[in-house]
Amino acid sequence: MLKNDLRVYKKNTIKSEKAFKKSKKLHVNGVHHNIRFFEPYPFVTKISKEKFLIDLDSNKYVDYWMGHWSLILGHSSKNVVNNVKKQLNNGWMHGTVSKNTIELSEKILKAVPVAEKIRYASTGTEATMYAIRLARTATKRKTIAKIDGGWHGYTTDLLKTVNWPFNKSESSGLTDEKYITSLPYNDLENSIRILKSKKNDLAAVIIEPVLGGGGCIPATKDYLTGIENFCHKNNSLFILDEIVTGFRFRYGCLYNTMKLDPDIVTLGKIVGGGFPIGVICGKNEYMNYANTSTFSKSNRAYIGGGTFSANPLTMIAGNSTLATIKNKGNTLYRKLNKFGSETRKMLDKKFNGNVITTGIGSLFLTHFLSNSITDIKNASDASKCSIKKLHDYHFHMIANDGIFFMPGKLGAFSDMHTKSDIINMAKSTDRFLTKFKK
Amino acid sequence: MLKNDLRVYKKNTIKSEKAFKKSKKLHVNGVHHNIRFFEPYPFVTKISKEKFLIDLDSNKYVDYWMGHWSLILGHSSKNVVNNVKKQLNNGWMHGTVSKNTIELSEKILKAVPVAEKIRYASTGTEATMYAIRLARTATKRKTIAKIDGGWHGYTTDLLKTVNWPFNKSESSGLTDEKYITSLPYNDLENSIRILKSKKNDLAAVIIEPVLGGGGCIPATKDYLTGIENFCHKNNSLFILDEIVTGFRFRYGCLYNTMKLDPDIVTLGKIVGGGFPIGVICGKNEYMNYANTSTFSKSNRAYIGGGTFSANPLTMIAGNSTLATIKNKGNTLYRKLNKFGSETRKMLDKKFNGNVITTGIGSLFLTHFLSNSITDIKNASDASKCSIKKLHDYHFHMIANDGIFFMPGKLGAFSDMHTKSDIINMAKSTDRFLTKFKK
Repeated sequence: MLKNDLRVYKKNTIKSEKAFKKSKKLHVNGVHHNIRFFEPYPFVTKISKEKFLIDLDSNKYVDYWMGHWSLILGHSSKNVVNNVKKQLNNGWMHGTVSKNTIELSEKILKAVPVAEKIRYASTGTEATMYAIRLARTATKRKTIAKIDGGWHGYTTDLLKTVNWPFNKSESSGLTDEKYITSLPYNDLENSIRILKSKKNDLAAVIIEPVLGGGGCIPATKDYLTGIENFCHKNNSLFILDEIVTGFRFRYGCLYNTMKLDPDIVTLGKIVGGGFPIGVICGKNEYMNYANTSTFSKSNRAYIGGGTFSANPLTMIAGNSTLATIKNKGNTLYRKLNKFGSETRKMLDKKFNGNVITTGIGSLFLTHFLSNSITDIKNASDASKCSIKKLHDYHFHMIANDGIFFMPGKLGAFSDMHTKSDIINMAKSTDRFLTKFKK
Repeated sequence: MLKNDLRVYKKNTIKSEKAFKKSKKLHVNGVHHNIRFFEPYPFVTKISKEKFLIDLDSNKYVDYWMGHWSLILGHSSKNVVNNVKKQLNNGWMHGTVSKNTIELSEKILKAVPVAEKIRYASTGTEATMYAIRLARTATKRKTIAKIDGGWHGYTTDLLKTVNWPFNKSESSGLTDEKYITSLPYNDLENSIRILKSKKNDLAAVIIEPVLGGGGCIPATKDYLTGIENFCHKNNSLFILDEIVTGFRFRYGCLYNTMKLDPDIVTLGKIVGGGFPIGVICGKNEYMNYANTSTFSKSNRAYIGGGTFSANPLTMIAGNSTLATIKNKGNTLYRKLNKFGSETRKMLDKKFNGNVITTGIGSLFLTHFLSNSITDIKNASDASKCSIKKLHDYHFHMIANDGIFFMPGKLGAFSDMHTKSDIINMAKSTDRFLTKFKK
């Protein structure tokens, strides 16, 4: 971290510093998601509105974190606010079947044809846990293959090879790691070699079509097709985790654009409009393994839901968000995808060969090249880049220019961002570069 | 199910029947939590308000399910509505540290002194999963003991011995069952015998102080004290799952009233005011195993949070709920606890020795004695009672008298219920009894 940035940040965030001290007394690490902490202390948010986060000291940040990338319409989107307010008077926790669930599912099924059956959970962590349980049930096998650097939430069933170095356990206290195997992203030959070695017990492969936490890296179509073909031939399930990518680049999932045929898809974030949601959906023949009227308990997958699943507020927020996106037609995605590609080009140009800005559509992340890395095709490449420089860069923008990226994490455009935000990001980047020239 | 009740129900729920058909096409089993289904089909809720559920056909039910027992103030509680509406304008998904989190934690710590450190997740399933991970990390052991009939959500780590018969697997697709052992509730001698046989690898025991899904059965103080003593001597963690019981009988947890000293407590439901929440809290020395600045990744527990953890809406709903409860002083709990004990007595008397109504405070469940059961001290006893008669009884009240219990599940009073509701329940019970006398 640059000393002057630190000084500026501390001077401007006095109330946050005090509040975060309290937070650290009350909470492990002071946060409720490890990635929300950054040095010297994260500012404490008072208001999130449109494209802004406003902290306790009234600093205003243009937000590219956007609620863990879940708010494609920006913060406090009006249509969602209005509909949720109405719903509040009519209950937020029926605890029974409710009609707006059916309406949301009809929307999802139309846009994501593989969602022949849908089950709502309350988080992505739950959705992937239940997807894995379904796959193991359907195949009567146990091994799951994931991607080096793949992030599918904190579930016991998938907590391996998330952070570099991938050969070290992610956590103590896990019991499930031996059933998880891991593949090098976008390296079909070596991935297939590993899959072949596990093929008799391979229940499923689970992949994010754009590696999110692992570095904002799109999978190639050839890679995904190759893995899918292997799965289908091997009677293993091909699971796409589209929690980040679903409704991010188009009104639907990324898989449709690549003519893929996943067996199960997990969704979250945007489909709940930023309200707690996780979705497991997929082909009838696999989803049906959760059906209590078809299977006895030892032959079926006992999956949630949970207390808060399909709660009316999340359902109405999801419905309103998807309806708003749909109404905007292609304009929204065309704009956001253009913002993304312009930003990637702009940053690559400014940094003059010293970075590669990865991403697709409205998602982007700047990797500071080091350790002879010249291409970012997987999380290993990303991990060998200078994470420190990336943090310095993001912190520079936070401290000096009111631009917020969760340090080290990818940025996402929302409908609230404008062209002028890209210009400001460019200017801030110029000033960052100037510091090093001096 | 009684034929006439079925006929009446079908006649009155025509719109629900149609909507639920759609729901079954879109969703596995038509529901998002297995227990939300009941025969012939569950009605579809349009509005939940105060003590009522109102379905698509405008039937009005006095609700004793109360959002999986999370709504102690009733549906759409005014104070919560008003504060959540305000918060909506200021953002529902900061994705960063927020001040109302600190305020909720201060309230919890004051009422639940063992909560020296708190971490918020979004569901009870997540909270218990992370509690187990912490216990395994702290002890470097793997075996977890739970209770026959204990329900701690759908997590892979605890999905065993939930439903009778307890010796059969709960689900296909699990990998973790061998590390879970199970104890007979309220049978200290046999429980200790089992714990002794596992003591070298025993990471923790997790117990609900009132068995919820397993039959609304309070643990005896001797039982809990005995298990706790064993845990403390054996360096195993004593975890109390107070997701149902926290803030249900008093402003705080049940453990305080029994002078227990749990190492970790899980909370949920009421502390989030019916908004998605799960809480892991407990002693510093154990919670600290999640601290990323103290431990390297293979020695610490990598736990959530998650995307939606500590989101401002849940935090404000929890804050408003606890503040409202606190303002009511002891009046609220005195009233609700009295309603519970009066109802238990009333039902036992009406059924004239053929049932035992278990419970404590505002929670109650009527067990129809059969198979020579004369006492309900654990989930095995409860499972041997006539589940069919219980369903018939609950369905009779739904179909004829606008009284809703999730069939087979315990009932909970809220602040919206009044004495007249107990009288109506008594009258409905009389009519149910009359049917059998004819």
